[in-house]
Amino acid sequence: MSDIQIAQENEAKEMQPITAIAEQAGLTAADLEQYGPYKAKVNFAAINRLKEKEDGKLILVTSINPTPAGEGKSTVTVGLGDALRQLDQSAVIALREPSLGPVMGMKGGATGGGYAQVVPMADINLHFTGDMHALTAAVNTLAALIDNHLQQGNALNIDPRRIIWKRALDINDRALRQVVIGLGGPVQGMPRQDGFDITVASELMAILCLATDITDLKRRISQIVIGYTYDRQPVTVGELEITGAIAMLLKDALKPNLVQTLEHTPALIHGGPFANIAHGCNSILATQTALKMGDIAITEAGFGADLGAEKFLDIKVPQLGKTPDTIVIVATVRALKYNGGVALADLTTENLGALDKGFSNLAKHIANMQRYGIPVVVAINEFTSDTEAEVTMLQEKCAKLGVKAVLASVWAHGGKGGLDLAQAVLEALDQPKNFQPLYDSNADIQSKLTTIVTDIYGGKEVVFEGKAINQLKEIEKNGWDHLPVCIAKTQYSLSDDPKALGAPTDFTVHVRELIPKLGAGFIVAMTGTVLTMPGLPKKPAALNMDVTEDGLISGLF
Amino acid sequence: MSDIQIAQENEAKEMQPITAIAEQAGLTAADLEQYGPYKAKVNFAAINRLKEKEDGKLILVTSINPTPAGEGKSTVTVGLGDALRQLDQSAVIALREPSLGPVMGMKGGATGGGYAQVVPMADINLHFTGDMHALTAAVNTLAALIDNHLQQGNALNIDPRRIIWKRALDINDRALRQVVIGLGGPVQGMPRQDGFDITVASELMAILCLATDITDLKRRISQIVIGYTYDRQPVTVGELEITGAIAMLLKDALKPNLVQTLEHTPALIHGGPFANIAHGCNSILATQTALKMGDIAITEAGFGADLGAEKFLDIKVPQLGKTPDTIVIVATVRALKYNGGVALADLTTENLGALDKGFSNLAKHIANMQRYGIPVVVAINEFTSDTEAEVTMLQEKCAKLGVKAVLASVWAHGGKGGLDLAQAVLEALDQPKNFQPLYDSNADIQSKLTTIVTDIYGGKEVVFEGKAINQLKEIEKNGWDHLPVCIAKTQYSLSDDPKALGAPTDFTVHVRELIPKLGAGFIVAMTGTVLTMPGLPKKPAALNMDVTEDGLISGLF
Repeated sequence: MSDIQIAQENEAKEMQPITAIAEQAGLTAADLEQYGPYKAKVNFAAINRLKEKEDGKLILVTSINPTPAGEGKSTVTVGLGDALRQLDQSAVIALREPSLGPVMGMKGGATGGGYAQVVPMADINLHFTGDMHALTAAVNTLAALIDNHLQQGNALNIDPRRIIWKRALDINDRALRQVVIGLGGPVQGMPRQDGFDITVASELMAILCLATDITDLKRRISQIVIGYTYDRQPVTVGELEITGAIAMLLKDALKPNLVQTLEHTPALIHGGPFANIAHGCNSILATQTALKMGDIAITEAGFGADLGAEKFLDIKVPQLGKTPDTIVIVATVRALKYNGGVALADLTTENLGALDKGFSNLAKHIANMQRYGIPVVVAINEFTSDTEAEVTMLQEKCAKLGVKAVLASVWAHGGKGGLDLAQAVLEALDQPKNFQPLYDSNADIQSKLTTIVTDIYGGKEVVFEGKAINQLKEIEKNGWDHLPVCIAKTQYSLSDDPKALGAPTDFTVHVRELIPKLGAGFIVAMTGTVLTMPGLPKKPAALNMDVTEDGLISGLF
Repeated sequence: MSDIQIAQENEAKEMQPITAIAEQAGLTAADLEQYGPYKAKVNFAAINRLKEKEDGKLILVTSINPTPAGEGKSTVTVGLGDALRQLDQSAVIALREPSLGPVMGMKGGATGGGYAQVVPMADINLHFTGDMHALTAAVNTLAALIDNHLQQGNALNIDPRRIIWKRALDINDRALRQVVIGLGGPVQGMPRQDGFDITVASELMAILCLATDITDLKRRISQIVIGYTYDRQPVTVGELEITGAIAMLLKDALKPNLVQTLEHTPALIHGGPFANIAHGCNSILATQTALKMGDIAITEAGFGADLGAEKFLDIKVPQLGKTPDTIVIVATVRALKYNGGVALADLTTENLGALDKGFSNLAKHIANMQRYGIPVVVAINEFTSDTEAEVTMLQEKCAKLGVKAVLASVWAHGGKGGLDLAQAVLEALDQPKNFQPLYDSNADIQSKLTTIVTDIYGGKEVVFEGKAINQLKEIEKNGWDHLPVCIAKTQYSLSDDPKALGAPTDFTVHVRELIPKLGAGFIVAMTGTVLTMPGLPKKPAALNMDVTEDGLISGLF
């Protein structure tokens, strides 16, 4: 059965009203704004009331570098939450929201898999409570107001060649990466080069995920740098006097969304910035709310630990005011063999040599997470092709690094398949932690970048290319170098070369552009050829999708 | 007080749970999908159950040609519904959904005004239940799939120069009217000229408003012509094999939305196609549902009666299977004086000569509506500057045309201010009607166009310009000439010249382009310089908008 079939069968039989899910976690119906019977936003009155409560423990789920073999980080996150509840722990899950672009393209759903899913699956994967759409509207309203400012006299003296605010759509649309707008003569606007990002790559998504309330949201929005004047001075949203309008469009999107897993574990699904161009974590408000609603909050960060977890620990943690108590790294035997050089088609064959070789990728991520002073557990997400010898080898190699590696079969069995993992995590939560930040945020941009590249990626050095050298000077001139850096890098490798699998060393990372994100509060360093607008594949998932007269969806994986 | 202040004050005190509103009209909580306590979608189970019931009476509210003086068609529609309920009639209102573009630009809210408003006002004007956003996503997903088809080998042999499917945003953004996409080399897509419409101008919006169920929605989507092959053959969405994916994105948007007026009259707000480029009426499903929920359904059509009402009667009625029982034409003394040549600044001064002259506009619309064989009532939407002499003159002139003109003060007094109007409408509902369609749909495109121009607009003839002549031949070749025509024309005049006020005669309408909308089921004839993507004004309404920490909005008029 496909994920959506499993979801639909169980949704029909077993979903509980969202008010009942909320009650488990100490919330009442008055704390919710319902979107149908099974989805709700948690209102600010509830969030403010919960602030009185003590925080629960925090588990961060991350993974090795993603491969085409699939790792199943969201699936493990959901299954771990369900397993903890089976062990009578009050666990609450906090995930990212799916983006419609990848859903239509390659990925299908993004709500876990098999019997470890959040539901209602189709709703969450499509329009959900409208957060992505509100963001898209806000990004493009801001862009339209910028171009209208140019058209109506350009009082702020904005240089049309130096506008860095891009439009966005929650769609994989390569044809919009580089466009020319404003054609057709003087009444149709000012011609200039522009481009669209996918909505989740926009700074407003990062802001939504870092803002702690509407006042903070407005402060961040007003600080967004949309471009530069002809005199090279930064121009902000605040100067355009449209902070209120943009914040107004996001006032509901800022509230965390509550749903449930197939086993009725409460799940907050809110915010989903890309983990390459942005910081890749769900919202601060959702994580904080999960920490208050349960004794244990389980959250995830995007892509591998080099991107998602690094940014969680270096960008999100200072804002969140809470460090993880345990980090779970998800790996699969298949993906490690792929890292060891095996072709995708041959991954079902036992290959201890390749596993041994590809283990270097997991080992590096373990060392990286241990470096932060937080207890680590490895979750081996089980596939039917895994052999006993392979699993044993993997567990022994982890044990040598002082880490317990536990087989989890949550896709096939839900929470029951994650009981061993949950037990190991509970033990880890009792271990002492001693959080060590990676860098001093007062260091300059160059040295922060170098620290990430050498200490986390395992590389040799950072080289700034032409454009980035000037931008570095501009950042210093504007006094922005105290901000954390957010590296936009391929997710497929620890280096900036997507083909360098395993644990490459001695490489140089080339920074080609530095983009100030003053609202989000970080400087993005673009490396390699990271795309901020994906494309659709030859056979997009959309070709298989359908809906019946009764509203039942198929083809969503 | 501004509209939003009146709305907010009354919302806080007096809004009823949407389940209570639904109950008045024979629906239960199980018939609804709630979006918070005050908004809901009516589900298909309820719609199908209601089909058993007999239809109520149908009132269509339309108006003279819009002027900068303001007419208040939505306000009168809401006030009339409230007044009918005060007279113990079971009335249900069916309106169009606001578009965010004009809200941010000039117009502010679009949910009635003063004490004749639908609420929650800010929610309805912003994201509401996400219908506009779902449409935007569907329009752009379809566009991305077309460009991906070009990129991935172009199996259907689509000519990139002859793609007529445009992208869309629910934003006033003139800089996107004419763009070039796909720049940057072979991996970034096929370069071609393109453009964005505002979402409400997209064919998918028209389809959403004409579809009777998901099966019909899919049939219409599959028939959309997105462009032509190099051999000039039409290419449809069905041939791209993405009908299911696009319909899936619209499955919830297809359900009518239920809200309430400040006086708790049930209001279905659903769909809002432009009345120039499209047919300008709310959805068939909402109108049908309103006809079943109450004994009297009151609905409106966009812009003046030459655009909205003509299209209601010639395009929507054949699909709806029900003709209006009374037509209300909204006029104001101010707007008629403007039509009589008075400048905007001077409209507060009594001017019987200008009123007499400008009355020609109302007279023409009255004659047009009477031509369809439906009883007509004129609603004079009261302004404080109206003098007794002006109102009396207007009423006498209407009486000479056999039409009752009733002063309504619903902005200031809500339903109470519309009691006389409601009484006149009830009398009209008892008069005999004898519906006469304007044209035989089997006539060819040219003669249907000519009939509208001569019999409704009062013009002399239609002239097809260069491009349109060839398109006319293509339409005949493809066998599409049995479809109704939807004229895209300025709303400000009965002619295609926005400056020709009153009731111009002897003019020629120039058709510059014919666009087949096979999914909507009509041929659009573009005249004059109708824009399908508006621009923002020098001082957009957005500049005054704000939201407080408590989520309270200001600046939305």
